[in-house]
Amino acid sequence: MAQLKQVIDNETADVFETKRVIAPELEKTLGQPHKVLDHGFVRVVDYMGDDSAIVQAARVSYGAGTKQVSQDRGLIRYLMRHWHSTPFEMCEIKFHIKLPIFIARQWIRHRTANVNEYSARYSVMDKEFYMPEPEQLAKQSMTNMQGRGDILDAAQSARVMQLLREDATRCYDHYEEMLNETVGGDVIDESKDGLARELARMNLTLNYYTQWYWKIDLHNLMHFLRLRADAHAQYEIRAYADVMCELLKSWCPIAYEAFEEYRLGAVNLSATGFSVIKRMIAGEKVTQETSGLTKREWGELEAVLAA
Amino acid sequence: MAQLKQVIDNETADVFETKRVIAPELEKTLGQPHKVLDHGFVRVVDYMGDDSAIVQAARVSYGAGTKQVSQDRGLIRYLMRHWHSTPFEMCEIKFHIKLPIFIARQWIRHRTANVNEYSARYSVMDKEFYMPEPEQLAKQSMTNMQGRGDILDAAQSARVMQLLREDATRCYDHYEEMLNETVGGDVIDESKDGLARELARMNLTLNYYTQWYWKIDLHNLMHFLRLRADAHAQYEIRAYADVMCELLKSWCPIAYEAFEEYRLGAVNLSATGFSVIKRMIAGEKVTQETSGLTKREWGELEAVLAA
Amino acid sequence: MAQLKQVIDNETADVFETKRVIAPELEKTLGQPHKVLDHGFVRVVDYMGDDSAIVQAARVSYGAGTKQVSQDRGLIRYLMRHWHSTPFEMCEIKFHIKLPIFIARQWIRHRTANVNEYSARYSVMDKEFYMPEPEQLAKQSMTNMQGRGDILDAAQSARVMQLLREDATRCYDHYEEMLNETVGGDVIDESKDGLARELARMNLTLNYYTQWYWKIDLHNLMHFLRLRADAHAQYEIRAYADVMCELLKSWCPIAYEAFEEYRLGAVNLSATGFSVIKRMIAGEKVTQETSGLTKREWGELEAVLAA
Amino acid sequence: MAQLKQVIDNETADVFETKRVIAPELEKTLGQPHKVLDHGFVRVVDYMGDDSAIVQAARVSYGAGTKQVSQDRGLIRYLMRHWHSTPFEMCEIKFHIKLPIFIARQWIRHRTANVNEYSARYSVMDKEFYMPEPEQLAKQSMTNMQGRGDILDAAQSARVMQLLREDATRCYDHYEEMLNETVGGDVIDESKDGLARELARMNLTLNYYTQWYWKIDLHNLMHFLRLRADAHAQYEIRAYADVMCELLKSWCPIAYEAFEEYRLGAVNLSATGFSVIKRMIAGEKVTQETSGLTKREWGELEAVLAA
Repeated sequence: MAQLKQVIDNETADVFETKRVIAPELEKTLGQPHKVLDHGFVRVVDYMGDDSAIVQAARVSYGAGTKQVSQDRGLIRYLMRHWHSTPFEMCEIKFHIKLPIFIARQWIRHRTANVNEYSARYSVMDKEFYMPEPEQLAKQSMTNMQGRGDILDAAQSARVMQLLREDATRCYDHYEEMLNETVGGDVIDESKDGLARELARMNLTLNYYTQWYWKIDLHNLMHFLRLRADAHAQYEIRAYADVMCELLKSWCPIAYEAFEEYRLGAVNLSATGFSVIKRMIAGEKVTQETSGLTKREWGELEAVLAA
Repeated sequence: MAQLKQVIDNETADVFETKRVIAPELEKTLGQPHKVLDHGFVRVVDYMGDDSAIVQAARVSYGAGTKQVSQDRGLIRYLMRHWHSTPFEMCEIKFHIKLPIFIARQWIRHRTANVNEYSARYSVMDKEFYMPEPEQLAKQSMTNMQGRGDILDAAQSARVMQLLREDATRCYDHYEEMLNETVGGDVIDESKDGLARELARMNLTLNYYTQWYWKIDLHNLMHFLRLRADAHAQYEIRAYADVMCELLKSWCPIAYEAFEEYRLGAVNLSATGFSVIKRMIAGEKVTQETSGLTKREWGELEAVLAA
Repeated sequence: MAQLKQVIDNETADVFETKRVIAPELEKTLGQPHKVLDHGFVRVVDYMGDDSAIVQAARVSYGAGTKQVSQDRGLIRYLMRHWHSTPFEMCEIKFHIKLPIFIARQWIRHRTANVNEYSARYSVMDKEFYMPEPEQLAKQSMTNMQGRGDILDAAQSARVMQLLREDATRCYDHYEEMLNETVGGDVIDESKDGLARELARMNLTLNYYTQWYWKIDLHNLMHFLRLRADAHAQYEIRAYADVMCELLKSWCPIAYEAFEEYRLGAVNLSATGFSVIKRMIAGEKVTQETSGLTKREWGELEAVLAA
Repeated sequence: MAQLKQVIDNETADVFETKRVIAPELEKTLGQPHKVLDHGFVRVVDYMGDDSAIVQAARVSYGAGTKQVSQDRGLIRYLMRHWHSTPFEMCEIKFHIKLPIFIARQWIRHRTANVNEYSARYSVMDKEFYMPEPEQLAKQSMTNMQGRGDILDAAQSARVMQLLREDATRCYDHYEEMLNETVGGDVIDESKDGLARELARMNLTLNYYTQWYWKIDLHNLMHFLRLRADAHAQYEIRAYADVMCELLKSWCPIAYEAFEEYRLGAVNLSATGFSVIKRMIAGEKVTQETSGLTKREWGELEAVLAA
């Protein structure tokens, strides 16, 4: 990461004067990498706007009409509660992220962002791959088709670690041999040619790290975080989302607080589910059989009531 | 515009320190309105990135591969020439714009921007409408179905001005009467009710001014400007695009220079059109009949060669 | 609407054979206009996919994993409940819609659709404007800044109708005079020129009807309908949304049923709001003061419980 | 591909009657896979609209104004030439595509499409990986940082093939061992647990095949094809683009012809480049030194003139 350090030092060496609004808490760690997983990181490269920019945009839309809810915090909470998305789109943030390819593939499905990814057509990939911590090596869940169950026992866990490490290492060594050059660009064997980078890359495993600049507006960032900071998200992407929640908090603290209240911590109930709730409040003893809900939905409702 | 002055004074009164990159030329006029048409304006409220941010993003993508074209200007021109759009998406700008509704309707068709418009459901519209200058009052073009031809004579021009002014004024007076309130929110006649704003607004004519915050990335801004700063664009929207070109120039001067060379001033030739060009260079005397082009395309080619 | 009739007759005269899936109920009224407001309509011009296409796409994503929830209805409800949006994006529909300009301005804010609007730069607008029914002429709501309150009394209502009608009529007459041509393209006075259409149009009021082709995928259509078929939406756009709900129902009946259960009829509760619900179920007598909610939020919670 | 055959048979067994427009040529091969690379394919699952739908949408926009260019072919060519994108957005197509992961990663960067990808969180991946043909195994290009140069000699080529095959095979075997289940879902060793699918997948190499449903409108499809059917695109994605060009041709033959003339075969010249062309036509002998172009741009201009 020597090279990254130099990039960061260059970026953050100078302090400039600006008439733009700034986010003082975020400025403190601007450009600094926040470690995620074994070799990954998230760092904020640039941003535009803060809590006041949300209010400013809302006031343009609602004009004199917003006098009533004139306090900034109240207005931001009102906007969040009533799903007014456009004022939140007026803030923008740019991250530099290093992450395993199989997570990058999940991440990129969020299409409302701008991306510049490190290109393995142009450049040689670093020899860095993701190795899960043993406590992350879990069985396939039997109840949740896309999730994890209990942790593997020590012997099986060790075997998985060994396979992952050996295969990733061997694949990289062969990648280098095919390229006939090292990551630094030095030719390995002058008597041979190197395979085109755009082809050799296909020999790498999906846990290799890639990196990208990822720029998104606040509204879409919150949508991403709501899905990816969720307990049902894959652990490896959630690890990034959790760090980004903290960064969001230091950028727009009032919006973040509202996001927790009206999104992260909110509960969405179906028409039938809410009718069950009303019967419960009225003192009725409702069972799955009398609820009108399927067993699965009833289980989901019980879970949310017990949380 | 007294109210606007206060908003601007609040916004630009303070100077902050930031570790973010700044665009020094743009900072000089940040927040200041640039007049367009009779009552409109464009002002830059905020921005993110500058020429160096384009280069920074490209270097992430192309890694060591960009050493060869390492000079910033050369790299930016290379990216523009080869239609690499993602590095330009890493810069973002937010405008506050005041414009006639019929132009806003054209403008909003560009969907890759974020918008907060003044809402006539919430607030009372200002009594400001667009009146063209006499030299803009032109006949319907007979050759270009969506364009203007020669300027109207003085008598007809005066009649048009009179009709536009009287109708806009009368419609607004009746709007106010229906609302039973003034733009300031004062009730006009205490003995009567006011029609809901969301209904009364339908009585206004399309030349009334609205305003919005409009945020867009540099790539999509250039796409917008290429279409709207073009000679075929309607004069009224071109007037805004021209001002925004100047603002872009003070924000990202190197990108703007490349934009002029490879977009604004570029020429796109069809397969057949380019084969005609090659025959001409080889010394052949090509006519419409021998060109393989339709009369209309031949005319377009002649026009571009004569420009 | 003679011209429209001809268009429709041409479009729907023939029956073709296809290997694509079809939606039998929707085919029955394909191309037929459904009246909305006084001169507007919605008609389905084309569509792609049906309920089975949602299931088909989900099965590609989840593979063998979907065997458990193999029944189509169950799978569609599962996808809707858990906010899986991409399978719903696999269906597409194209509408032809005629609507007042002030509603078109609201509508176009939904950016995830394709639009071809009638262009007043190219063509002369029809003399058709929206006149609300007297029972729609309501006061400005005092509690909801963007809404309507009680209906106006007969005298005030009659005055509003008169103003709307006279202003729209006069503005159109002057539009025609400025153009110096009729909607059919006939020149009115041979001794005069006509103002360019792109300019003359600015004299029309916002209740004139425009029309467009509007194409959208099922996921985004449901998002649009959730916002616009809602009681808080302006009546005039809700009138369109209600008709489109019926059309959606005949296109994808299973998805529509799930949409009603998990979106239209669903209730979203904030973290604090849901904690109040749990206390109520536990038998506690909660008041606004002890709820932790603001007065406004408490009111919203009471309303939803009373519904 | 036995399973796929069954899917296709189910999909295409029936013929339905519809009032929608159909594309007769495309119907002939609807649902049938077109082979690409060693295990990949492209097949059209569904579509909406045809050439006539482009014309229909344009006529709504331009109304009576389009009478002049009333012939369909002329109108479509006019729209393409003048970059009118919205009428082309009125056609939609849905593909089922099987492709190597490293190509899927490139492909997904086109964000204006809808995607449902096979999920390796839910299901076990097939044991199918991409092996290039020997004539595709080329050296890294020295002039084009993202391209290929000459073909490797037989010995080096054989070595590359061996490495790719062995590594992909071994990685899959270990993937299966970690999962403790086969692609069919059978448990391998009852005494052991299986690692969660979302984790085990990270051991696969980037040449494994994935598949997805990919839905896009005609305008954005042409944009994709212009970039990916280009000589500078990576061979493996170009192989897909070439097949899709043929499918587009059978879907909208008139639009495709215009696409070839005004996009695929078109030439874009910079302001300076075009001034050089004009000097050449005037008989001047222009050299790189007198051209005002950089060496690189001069080389690009020479290449295009020689083509």
